[in-house]
Amino acid sequence: MTRERIYLFDTTLRDGQQTPGIDFSVEDKIAIASLLDQFGMDYVEGGYPGANPTDTEFFKCRRTDKASFVAFGMTKRAGVSASNDPGLSALLSAKSDAICLVAKSWDYHVEVALGCTNEENLDNIRASVEAVVASGREAMVDCEHFFDGYKANSAYALACAKTAFEAGARWVVLCDTNGGTQPPEIREIVSAVIAEGVPGANLGIHAHNDTGQAVANSLAAVEAGVRQIQGTLNGIGERCGNANLVTLIATLALKETYSSRFETGIDAERLQELTKLAHAFDELLNRSPDPQAPYVGASAFATKAGIHASALLKDPRTYEHVAPESVGNLRKVMVSDQGGKANFINALKRRGITVSKDDPRLDKLISIVKEREATGYAYEGADASFALLASRILGTVPDFFRVESFRVMVERRFDANGKLKTVSEAVVRVIVDGETMMSVAEGHGPVNALDLALRKDLGKYQSEIADLELADYKVRILNGGTEAVTRVLIESTDRSGARWWTVGVSDNIIDASFQALMDSIVYKLLKNRDQVGSIAAE
Amino acid sequence: MTRERIYLFDTTLRDGQQTPGIDFSVEDKIAIASLLDQFGMDYVEGGYPGANPTDTEFFKCRRTDKASFVAFGMTKRAGVSASNDPGLSALLSAKSDAICLVAKSWDYHVEVALGCTNEENLDNIRASVEAVVASGREAMVDCEHFFDGYKANSAYALACAKTAFEAGARWVVLCDTNGGTQPPEIREIVSAVIAEGVPGANLGIHAHNDTGQAVANSLAAVEAGVRQIQGTLNGIGERCGNANLVTLIATLALKETYSSRFETGIDAERLQELTKLAHAFDELLNRSPDPQAPYVGASAFATKAGIHASALLKDPRTYEHVAPESVGNLRKVMVSDQGGKANFINALKRRGITVSKDDPRLDKLISIVKEREATGYAYEGADASFALLASRILGTVPDFFRVESFRVMVERRFDANGKLKTVSEAVVRVIVDGETMMSVAEGHGPVNALDLALRKDLGKYQSEIADLELADYKVRILNGGTEAVTRVLIESTDRSGARWWTVGVSDNIIDASFQALMDSIVYKLLKNRDQVGSIAAE
Repeated sequence: MTRERIYLFDTTLRDGQQTPGIDFSVEDKIAIASLLDQFGMDYVEGGYPGANPTDTEFFKCRRTDKASFVAFGMTKRAGVSASNDPGLSALLSAKSDAICLVAKSWDYHVEVALGCTNEENLDNIRASVEAVVASGREAMVDCEHFFDGYKANSAYALACAKTAFEAGARWVVLCDTNGGTQPPEIREIVSAVIAEGVPGANLGIHAHNDTGQAVANSLAAVEAGVRQIQGTLNGIGERCGNANLVTLIATLALKETYSSRFETGIDAERLQELTKLAHAFDELLNRSPDPQAPYVGASAFATKAGIHASALLKDPRTYEHVAPESVGNLRKVMVSDQGGKANFINALKRRGITVSKDDPRLDKLISIVKEREATGYAYEGADASFALLASRILGTVPDFFRVESFRVMVERRFDANGKLKTVSEAVVRVIVDGETMMSVAEGHGPVNALDLALRKDLGKYQSEIADLELADYKVRILNGGTEAVTRVLIESTDRSGARWWTVGVSDNIIDASFQALMDSIVYKLLKNRDQVGSIAAE
Repeated sequence: MTRERIYLFDTTLRDGQQTPGIDFSVEDKIAIASLLDQFGMDYVEGGYPGANPTDTEFFKCRRTDKASFVAFGMTKRAGVSASNDPGLSALLSAKSDAICLVAKSWDYHVEVALGCTNEENLDNIRASVEAVVASGREAMVDCEHFFDGYKANSAYALACAKTAFEAGARWVVLCDTNGGTQPPEIREIVSAVIAEGVPGANLGIHAHNDTGQAVANSLAAVEAGVRQIQGTLNGIGERCGNANLVTLIATLALKETYSSRFETGIDAERLQELTKLAHAFDELLNRSPDPQAPYVGASAFATKAGIHASALLKDPRTYEHVAPESVGNLRKVMVSDQGGKANFINALKRRGITVSKDDPRLDKLISIVKEREATGYAYEGADASFALLASRILGTVPDFFRVESFRVMVERRFDANGKLKTVSEAVVRVIVDGETMMSVAEGHGPVNALDLALRKDLGKYQSEIADLELADYKVRILNGGTEAVTRVLIESTDRSGARWWTVGVSDNIIDASFQALMDSIVYKLLKNRDQVGSIAAE
């Protein structure tokens, strides 16, 4: 059976750069291009050379090995020849395998934004594509506002697409620039373009997520005949984002409706690295991955409910739309007060702890977890605290050190210059091997001061926690008023790239933070000894 | 032109409760049910009475006013009559207008999970629906795993749907439980069900977001004929979430493809509160709203400086797929925000403060608010702090008292009996009318101690704040790590029943709390003098 090839065009480095809060440096771009190239994208669009110094610098070399490296830019302006247009010249002198020219295809924008006639715009498209082809590069044309333009003046939008194709563009990409087009409209309009003579094999789709349907719009276009999909890693992009290529890659490969008819450059083995790709990109952006992301989120294959959980363990396939391993993700049956014994055994097994169903220590662990969860602990979000608790009850955890006392002080007063100042200071008294050590630290607020003091001197263990870092700190007030119970969740990380979450609960936020900080340090020490999850209940 | 009615079924409180990390208390559920009811949902599913103490308690009263209040539960088991089934009895004794029964419609699950015959399962559906109808309640049946079941054994899946309908179910809801079905399959299978004799007017769709297409699947089902959509606020739910009702409501109302044929219970005026609804829900969950959420995200109508920005200001309609005001959101052009001033004047007007567009103090207020919001203040959620700030800049606020200094200490140590104990103590030095007063208090944690000390002795104002109470306290960490910036929101109340929110921001949680506590007290003193919002800029 021969399947038709769908080409993946990644625009993370170009359109993804429009995401509020995201600004790539040249180094970022080099790292991301390499991720994309190694993963197997067909096209990697690197940016807009000539538009800003970063992109100009980035296009001084070819930045991909296998993928086609694409430069983005505008068609030539009216009134100058292709060879005299400075923008087009900058584009042609950039090091790239292909050039993607953006062209207006909504007559209103031709008039208002370009200020030229409809016919001049068609000439510009034609001449620019010919110049790209003459330079030996693959030419593509992004038809901006294509769907809205088609609704306003279908003949003109079609003329733009046809002109690009007939001038020699390998791909004519239909853009839903404002992101509001619905899947049935996409199907209908793509079909009209094909009927007009631009073959589906030369058409691409560029969708935005303004109605939460960028993925659906891309697939609707594929059904209607397009064979190139443009999108970004994790769906970053202007406003609500672009089509999420991570989701699309998995769906095209794993959903029979598509996989029976189409194939991409990503084979089954590579697909198992999809979760890693998505998380590596978030890591580069220095943000936490979305736990609910399709296929690759930490919760994508997580089950909480009691009823489902035990059935799921019996036969996962009937409760999972695809196998988590196929995208390199993991099944997760969560520890929570809704879960039963089977959940617990499974949660422990995932941490390398095997315990028999009849072991009385298991009942003890379950009752302690339930009791603590009733007072506000949330072990489903604090893997490391759970592993530590389980290790303590099912095995033993060494007493590395003991905090005998601590004191935290926050003082707001006028300093010597008469300015108001708030100072936070913590003093910690720790006993390691019978020896008492006192540490003091100032911090940005009481929790930071306590954290710094705690990790300042752990005697012989100090060198071991040198690479321990707090990555995130969350506070949740569990009921109203300032005397409420507070839950603190802390995410820690170390040089190995591992991440773990710990929890603390108290009516005192400092106390709750202290518990979570302590768990994090002890977990790190166990981890250094490879002792996490190694205690099989004897 | 008559349009067909689409019914909105909200399952935030039932299926949304399966979201990892989300656990609703009875109070949470009451607050959310009220949000949903006031917004205009047709059905509010509250949970599963009998399954856990929270839901049982929640169903002791009807919790909606206009919306139909729905209880969820299982069909009766095989081998007992409907009247002898304890689960069904619990369900029938809950206070609800409608009952949604979940029924297996995949033969494999009937065998493996229920352990009964296919025929027995049909009997259970029939008898349970009849029992619900006999109790005077509206009956609905959620056909679990309907689409996967249909693919495995279409005749049986159809028999389940037909049995439910013929037994008197007002709605037969087709569930894509595992979330992997694609839009074309949804269209095809829904059409088959309608062809089999269950009218579209009696069909609902329940979609999950495992391939990022829960919204598209819901709309595909509507196109194929269903007239009820199940979903959740902001798309919360198990794994990758449920269909996002917030997005669907906007798309059904604003996209001509749908709005020309369909209507929901949400009119254009109510639609303008959509952004507020989405954000209020996140506030209840104590999480930051997703800036890239369709329609309601802070970035949904944001444009980064560049080509689009100036064209957008010339004619926003050609760069925005819908008008941001239509969903109560704002246009955001990152170069210069033209919409800002009018928004401010409106916000002030709502608080009884009239100010002219040309008043230079207005520009000062706007720049201070923008500057503070950039550092983390959230005046949207802190009405009283906003009113206070506006009063200070547009008029005057008396210096009732001044806090010269404070000191908060948290100490963890062994007490006289050798038990670990954490003590929090605060000392505050306040000047009223030139007289210095020192107060000290112990509390449950540092913020509580500070609150108690602050309100212990305000001299001649003490009697005025005797009825001031803190009703809620929220903390949000605005960026990672324990040195992060912290935002504190405090809700206060007094004997009059008034409630007001104040905000504080600092890298020190105690300092942030102090700011919010101070604002709350000063607001209360102004309120006692009827001076809030009375300062019309002269």
